[in-house]
Amino acid sequence: MAKNLTTRKEDYSKWYNELVVRADLAENSAVRGCMVIKPYGYAIWEKMQAQLDKMFKETGHQNAYFPLFVPKSLFEAEEKNAEGFAKECAIVTHYRLKTDPDNEGKLIVDPEAKLEEELVVRPTSEAIIWNTYKGWIQSYRDLPILVNQWANVVRWEMRTRLFLRTAEFLWQEGHTAHATKAEAMAETEQMNNIYAEFAETFMAMPVIKGRKTESERFAGAEDTYCIEALMQDGKALQAGTSHFLGQNFAKAFDVKFATKEGGLDYVWATSWGVSTRLMGALVMTHSDDNGLVLPPNLAPIQVVIVPIYKGEEQLNQISEVALQLQSDLRKAGISVKYDDRDTQKPGWKFAQYELQGVPVRIAIGPKDLEKGSVELARRDTLKKEFISRNEVVDKVQSLMVEMQDNMFKKAQVFREEHTTRVDSFDEFKKVLKEKGGFISAHWDGTAETETKIKEMTKATIRLIPFDGEKEEGSCVLTGKPSAQRVLFAKAY
Amino acid sequence: MAKNLTTRKEDYSKWYNELVVRADLAENSAVRGCMVIKPYGYAIWEKMQAQLDKMFKETGHQNAYFPLFVPKSLFEAEEKNAEGFAKECAIVTHYRLKTDPDNEGKLIVDPEAKLEEELVVRPTSEAIIWNTYKGWIQSYRDLPILVNQWANVVRWEMRTRLFLRTAEFLWQEGHTAHATKAEAMAETEQMNNIYAEFAETFMAMPVIKGRKTESERFAGAEDTYCIEALMQDGKALQAGTSHFLGQNFAKAFDVKFATKEGGLDYVWATSWGVSTRLMGALVMTHSDDNGLVLPPNLAPIQVVIVPIYKGEEQLNQISEVALQLQSDLRKAGISVKYDDRDTQKPGWKFAQYELQGVPVRIAIGPKDLEKGSVELARRDTLKKEFISRNEVVDKVQSLMVEMQDNMFKKAQVFREEHTTRVDSFDEFKKVLKEKGGFISAHWDGTAETETKIKEMTKATIRLIPFDGEKEEGSCVLTGKPSAQRVLFAKAY
Repeated sequence: MAKNLTTRKEDYSKWYNELVVRADLAENSAVRGCMVIKPYGYAIWEKMQAQLDKMFKETGHQNAYFPLFVPKSLFEAEEKNAEGFAKECAIVTHYRLKTDPDNEGKLIVDPEAKLEEELVVRPTSEAIIWNTYKGWIQSYRDLPILVNQWANVVRWEMRTRLFLRTAEFLWQEGHTAHATKAEAMAETEQMNNIYAEFAETFMAMPVIKGRKTESERFAGAEDTYCIEALMQDGKALQAGTSHFLGQNFAKAFDVKFATKEGGLDYVWATSWGVSTRLMGALVMTHSDDNGLVLPPNLAPIQVVIVPIYKGEEQLNQISEVALQLQSDLRKAGISVKYDDRDTQKPGWKFAQYELQGVPVRIAIGPKDLEKGSVELARRDTLKKEFISRNEVVDKVQSLMVEMQDNMFKKAQVFREEHTTRVDSFDEFKKVLKEKGGFISAHWDGTAETETKIKEMTKATIRLIPFDGEKEEGSCVLTGKPSAQRVLFAKAY
Repeated sequence: MAKNLTTRKEDYSKWYNELVVRADLAENSAVRGCMVIKPYGYAIWEKMQAQLDKMFKETGHQNAYFPLFVPKSLFEAEEKNAEGFAKECAIVTHYRLKTDPDNEGKLIVDPEAKLEEELVVRPTSEAIIWNTYKGWIQSYRDLPILVNQWANVVRWEMRTRLFLRTAEFLWQEGHTAHATKAEAMAETEQMNNIYAEFAETFMAMPVIKGRKTESERFAGAEDTYCIEALMQDGKALQAGTSHFLGQNFAKAFDVKFATKEGGLDYVWATSWGVSTRLMGALVMTHSDDNGLVLPPNLAPIQVVIVPIYKGEEQLNQISEVALQLQSDLRKAGISVKYDDRDTQKPGWKFAQYELQGVPVRIAIGPKDLEKGSVELARRDTLKKEFISRNEVVDKVQSLMVEMQDNMFKKAQVFREEHTTRVDSFDEFKKVLKEKGGFISAHWDGTAETETKIKEMTKATIRLIPFDGEKEEGSCVLTGKPSAQRVLFAKAY
């Protein structure tokens, strides 16, 4: 395992924190709760962005950009939304600093530069966007509006963790406007499906699709769809949400449209988002005690080639082969790095790329030159083999598919092994304590029971699965009738 | 000309403001000085971003992300930089709103949620980034660091205009760290050259490269390189800057490195940026009284196809041809929109795409069906011609190159015609008043003279051109000796 890296078994939480920093994904900054996303981490996020953006555009969405600030009077217009975010938002009150008259090298806030109205740094953009849409929408001809924004948002969280919960984070937020309820509901479902497809196909992370209970809904939504994944410590992670907002924001901002039939109606809305939190989910789904394990579809470097040599002549001979391989692989669409730095030894490089989760490592030494072979190691299983140089491109191409698939299946098996059907509250508590994971149990449908279970066990209802069988039963806590099992878990 | 669009001659400034809004590029928001970038405008910005990002990566740069907020103590660490931005920055002082006890539906800032240290919303990121680099750099082996960030920044400008000067804007900021002064200076020049290449090749906007005078430098820089362009009203626009920061930030944040020779030295720095201001430059360089004129290399839609028909049968026949053309053009790498909406008439569509600057419009009517022809109109010259259907792909491909080239040359001729060498201050004032544009004149090199000229004429020294001849002469104001002409202009 990687030198000095805490193992998952020793302390899962510490393992995660260490790994994110040591693999050069991110680090804490001088600003409380805000992170620096380092180049290697950002390169993964860019791959996520590019793929999601493609999927959004293929389904007719366009990008736009709305202001960072929300005037307080707009912020409070949709009451539930405001209530949900008011307690954790950064507020701009002044627009100038001046030299401290008592201390010349220092600056202080200039009391004369106080804003007439305070500005909230956006924790989410429904308010500012619906205030804008009011000017864009007059008639059914102006609908639908299918807009997405890539942006930073700020939620003043008290306990933060790199990627999983930070005061500032990066995300995308889609905000759509529709003429009918049915259209808005279809959009809500479509985007949740896109998130699921992205998670499973690109992150190799199996997810369950469903809806949130009323108490877990987005503030201001009528329905929240979500995808939930299971981490290796048995805790669930909400990986994406898609909200059906009904006419709430249209009413709050008075956005009406002339219908085809000649009437006047409020516009129907959705919003949906995923964030840099996905980076945390990616790390926690696949990585091991040696470091990151990245799915080939999101790895910034898919193959690294390391020369093993003594002296410059040997290096030159190996480099000739390596650069040819690099060129052949690149032609096949594989991203490759040839690391011929002489400042680091091969062993150091092996450990480093293992730590950083590069899917395939190719090593070439003097013996390989003689034999026309290379040593190829795959990151997911840590298996090594010698193959002929001529086979490398084909082998790597098939490995990209195989590893992506293997990682998904491994995570899927883990999730299945950690999803337990329970029918009594004692069993509920026992499974939660000893095994964790998803607990599939009956619930009487009341917020009261949900809260009680949360207070007693720290487990929450993660979602009401869409594909859950409509099996009747009795609530695991109250014994009252229930029409469907829901999934409980402790969660990030 | 476009219906109701103010002409450039009537009121250039009004023409610009109207055009930006009516062509769906951007609009003012409910937040003072902050704009909404609409989907069509954002699509152009995305094309700019994609190209610049490619050029940055090809020169070895990586993207990363740093916090939005800068704690006041870090903000003030580099004195000149702090002084330069202190008067126009948004300041976060609180982190929570609460219900107004005197008015239940309203929220107020919670006085108990006051931050211990105020946070400045980044106007630029040198401070937060150099505080971070301190942890990244120990030895020459850690250098160079070549990092770029795509982000939003806030400068509390009092007089704002869409794209040209907004309180919040989008930009990229490169921040590099080097072991030697020579390397940092080479980077400064390289990035300024990349900006020039981008402006000329993609925006079709000719620029002059040079350095700023001391008083026009970036706050905290030792030297500022820039590219300057000339707008159609004869005012100059600074389109990009690249700063050699010397060791100023390394000293302010105590960033030292172990040199190869075993010593300890401060790190050398550069920073460089372009912003959504480029959108304003693009509009003002090429557009006319009919609306936007977009260079093919940055147009989100390069070709629009409009059917001219009566009745569904005719539409179906035309659509068959149009969709085949669309498919052929797309295969050739051209972005095409086929607008067969029946809610708008052809004339309306023609005006709309002209207003939005789509480079090529193809119209197909019933007569074209008979003849196997199409009507093709180019946006830059407004010329129309009928060509055979079989020629369309070749014609459009050659037009993309020709129009890009034509637009550049037209702007270049305009700039040459509006660059005047003057040798007396009377002539200086006369040219400035009657013709505008760049004035090439001698200057005695003092900030005092520079300020006087600015106060008397509102013209500033835009730059000391790199390729200016080293011609000796006497200052246009003071008559004192001068070694080189500099370029003056009124500027955005």
